[in-house]
Amino acid sequence: MGFQERQVTVTVEFMRRIAKAAAAETLPRFRQHTAVVNKLAVGFDPVTEADREAERAIRALISAEFPGHGILGEEHGLENASSRHVWVIDPIDGTRAFISGLPVWGTLVGLTVDGDAVAGMMSQPFTGELFYADAEGAHYEGPGGNRRLATRQTTDLADATLFTTTPALFRDGKRAIYDRLEGRVRLARYGTDCYAFAMVAAGHADIVVEAGLQPYDIVALIPIIEKAGGVVTTFDGGPAEKGGDVIAAATPELHAAALAVLRG
Amino acid sequence: MGFQERQVTVTVEFMRRIAKAAAAETLPRFRQHTAVVNKLAVGFDPVTEADREAERAIRALISAEFPGHGILGEEHGLENASSRHVWVIDPIDGTRAFISGLPVWGTLVGLTVDGDAVAGMMSQPFTGELFYADAEGAHYEGPGGNRRLATRQTTDLADATLFTTTPALFRDGKRAIYDRLEGRVRLARYGTDCYAFAMVAAGHADIVVEAGLQPYDIVALIPIIEKAGGVVTTFDGGPAEKGGDVIAAATPELHAAALAVLRG
Repeated sequence: MGFQERQVTVTVEFMRRIAKAAAAETLPRFRQHTAVVNKLAVGFDPVTEADREAERAIRALISAEFPGHGILGEEHGLENASSRHVWVIDPIDGTRAFISGLPVWGTLVGLTVDGDAVAGMMSQPFTGELFYADAEGAHYEGPGGNRRLATRQTTDLADATLFTTTPALFRDGKRAIYDRLEGRVRLARYGTDCYAFAMVAAGHADIVVEAGLQPYDIVALIPIIEKAGGVVTTFDGGPAEKGGDVIAAATPELHAAALAVLRG
Repeated sequence: MGFQERQVTVTVEFMRRIAKAAAAETLPRFRQHTAVVNKLAVGFDPVTEADREAERAIRALISAEFPGHGILGEEHGLENASSRHVWVIDPIDGTRAFISGLPVWGTLVGLTVDGDAVAGMMSQPFTGELFYADAEGAHYEGPGGNRRLATRQTTDLADATLFTTTPALFRDGKRAIYDRLEGRVRLARYGTDCYAFAMVAAGHADIVVEAGLQPYDIVALIPIIEKAGGVVTTFDGGPAEKGGDVIAAATPELHAAALAVLRG
């Protein structure tokens, strides 16, 4: 297969349509007392009707626009697994924020070609925000106006703000590694899920680290951060498309400095 | 002095005016790269121009509407200290959220009479939300529509969601006490500041615990939670108007259960 076949044009208009279709399922159920189903008998992994219905709506749009493309979603599994193009969906990233009324969850939709993330969007319908990246760059649309996304030019850990959902996700030996990094930065903040990555892309924060991510937690965010000037990898410096322990940083220099601390 | 002199009518129109005046100072500076001044040589306590200018604007409105009332603010100290009526202001509660681009900070303005919190408001201008309480009850105005605030009827810790800014604020022996409480609830979430208290009042979360609060961190929120059906006290069950270690809970039963755990 040639280079042409790798290329797919994902328009901003299509991303806006996805965001709108997802919002129609999520927003009316946000801050309503929706039934929460525990997916796992152990721990707490809430899934709402909003999650399932939003993924259904997103899949329908993708299938109509790009028939034959693969689609991987948190709720409904993988279809067209053999396609070189695979869309990766998390209808509500940050379900804990969602069920707690906090407007820092988001809808994530990304596109991989041969395993590389090439386009993606995160939308937050309560605040009316859309963060997205295509081949041209990374962009923001929201109440603050539309603009290009660009990371902050932070290069030293001592100047950096660090986000993570909760240090408790770094288990066993990893917790000491996380704590070491937190001890080196200026400010650490918890509880942010996908919104933290968007803030790095937008230049409001410098580093995000997360443990044990799934592909649908991160694929959509990789192009947004990379096209804004940042770097996203696993803790060992490899591609983050398959999830795992992931770090995003505002600049290559900051990424290298953080990785050095994580490696000990 | 008689009972009449204790009474002050704080209209919703006045609270809306305060929220608007504060927003005019905070919102244009949100997500701009404002200079951050460290108030303390040790630790990280950012104050922005937004903080100072918003407090100035709020003080001007209060002085014009209620001349002679006391005003206590984070930035500009206490004036008219001998008044029975004291307004307590935090122009930006959640400065770390503010400087990180997260829309979970808020402007807090509360009124105490003889030390009791009797009216209060929290506004979040990016999301366009206003939570407030007067003698009549607690109310919400925002994108989800206007409505009365009412806490969720959670009575058991095992069903409760718990918020705190970060467990790291519970130092020394207190950390074990916090961890004991976290171990008893269904879900814990970090990083929320004043927004967490608003979520309890709105019925989206059940408990907030915070260590070492200042009066301006909590006074405005007390009437909002109490008039919505919740309970706010210090960890030893006393009034929370002076700050300290504070717990807010959705119901008296849940408050009692949490207090029992905190006491060990």
